[in-house]
Amino acid sequence: MRYSHSLTVPFQDVDAAGKVFFAHLFRYAHEAYERFMEHIGLPLAGWIDSAEYLIPISHAQCDYHLPLQLNQTISIELALVRLGNSAFTLRYRFLGKDGQCHATAETVHVLVAAREHTSTPIPRHLRLALESYLDT
Amino acid sequence: MRYSHSLTVPFQDVDAAGKVFFAHLFRYAHEAYERFMEHIGLPLAGWIDSAEYLIPISHAQCDYHLPLQLNQTISIELALVRLGNSAFTLRYRFLGKDGQCHATAETVHVLVAAREHTSTPIPRHLRLALESYLDT
Amino acid sequence: MRYSHSLTVPFQDVDAAGKVFFAHLFRYAHEAYERFMEHIGLPLAGWIDSAEYLIPISHAQCDYHLPLQLNQTISIELALVRLGNSAFTLRYRFLGKDGQCHATAETVHVLVAAREHTSTPIPRHLRLALESYLDT
Amino acid sequence: MRYSHSLTVPFQDVDAAGKVFFAHLFRYAHEAYERFMEHIGLPLAGWIDSAEYLIPISHAQCDYHLPLQLNQTISIELALVRLGNSAFTLRYRFLGKDGQCHATAETVHVLVAAREHTSTPIPRHLRLALESYLDT
Repeated sequence: MRYSHSLTVPFQDVDAAGKVFFAHLFRYAHEAYERFMEHIGLPLAGWIDSAEYLIPISHAQCDYHLPLQLNQTISIELALVRLGNSAFTLRYRFLGKDGQCHATAETVHVLVAAREHTSTPIPRHLRLALESYLDT
Repeated sequence: MRYSHSLTVPFQDVDAAGKVFFAHLFRYAHEAYERFMEHIGLPLAGWIDSAEYLIPISHAQCDYHLPLQLNQTISIELALVRLGNSAFTLRYRFLGKDGQCHATAETVHVLVAAREHTSTPIPRHLRLALESYLDT
Repeated sequence: MRYSHSLTVPFQDVDAAGKVFFAHLFRYAHEAYERFMEHIGLPLAGWIDSAEYLIPISHAQCDYHLPLQLNQTISIELALVRLGNSAFTLRYRFLGKDGQCHATAETVHVLVAAREHTSTPIPRHLRLALESYLDT
Repeated sequence: MRYSHSLTVPFQDVDAAGKVFFAHLFRYAHEAYERFMEHIGLPLAGWIDSAEYLIPISHAQCDYHLPLQLNQTISIELALVRLGNSAFTLRYRFLGKDGQCHATAETVHVLVAAREHTSTPIPRHLRLALESYLDT
């Protein structure tokens, strides 16, 4: 299973070279991740409120293939590419209307016990919710 | 007295029309305000940590006279234009190197008691620190 | 007639005080304006490509009534409040799900001839498209 | 040789979890890159104006070791880690006041001929300017 989030590139995200500034794709990826977590019933707001776990990002990367343009509508296809003991990795493909892949990003998320500030196993309800999105 | 903060317009803040996107001037103004509060010995981080007061912005406005360009160095001149019982108003003038005024902004800040969520008189130490910046 | 644009407050737009940073509402307003211009058949991208007119913002303001929270879904209700000879003013109401108004913003847009850099009458096709959104 | 750029984390860059949002480090890295290019006499604005070359980013990555806090002053240490025929790689280390490394990022920049849109050898003046920053 994959999750898809779409957006239209706003005016302000285009930089002085006339293309979307590279760092914005990380923002877009995170918005896809937020909507995804909500979709699987575990919104980030709930994690913050419970104050039991933190899920910081330990690594992020993006490969840029084709620039994104003003007003372009893109679909961000999210998949889980690794589900470890205390960390998981999400991959994001930024697809244009014609299906061309403009960029591919990854973020690594680590489960941390809020009190001890040490990595901790992914709780069972999150693991179950993530599993069906694992791209094998 | 006035407080001055300078910055160089970054690449990413220029929008699809080749000028600085209008909303960024509010970000710049807030950064000047943060540096100013630090300068008078009352940094925002301290207010957040103390958890006694909040200082939300109740109004913000900006008049744009001349566009800001990529890489342009500007000086933001901050002054206090109103010091009320429970609110104060800051004015920001965005000056180019030649002294030309590119924009003028204002922000209104209200003192709120964190527990009761009601407006409350400006505490004495903040009032004293602000007074010398009042532009009359 | 009014135009409505909705959005969900992303994680990153919440600031160190736990509420949406005030300047982001200007970004949200502009996104509503972009979608509106597209809706009336005159997208900003077209104006930039034609290179005949510029429509800079000469004034922006916002009154903040209630803070916006993480993950909150808001509806931005856009209306035209002034249609002058060479300028028009848009008003944006930020409404929560219960209809409560969290903030009200305005932006003033001036038509400028790209070559002469002087204000110029609003072209007929834009005036006609805007007129039905005039809030009287 | 290394180039160093410092900044203070602004209020608005702290997210709903109370730490600097991960994507902002890419913005900070790019600001360090902009100041660096200016420092070696080849500011980005000049490249855009000349319209002969583009220098898009083809890859970006960041490893996050320790969160950045509100108001924290950091020093971004920039070094060149690869100087290829038509691409170069910059590394950024985000250092706290105590010298602790909070994060390490890299960006890969490709020289592209603006007209043909194909990768092209790094021009001699840029190569010469970069060489002394190569970290071996």
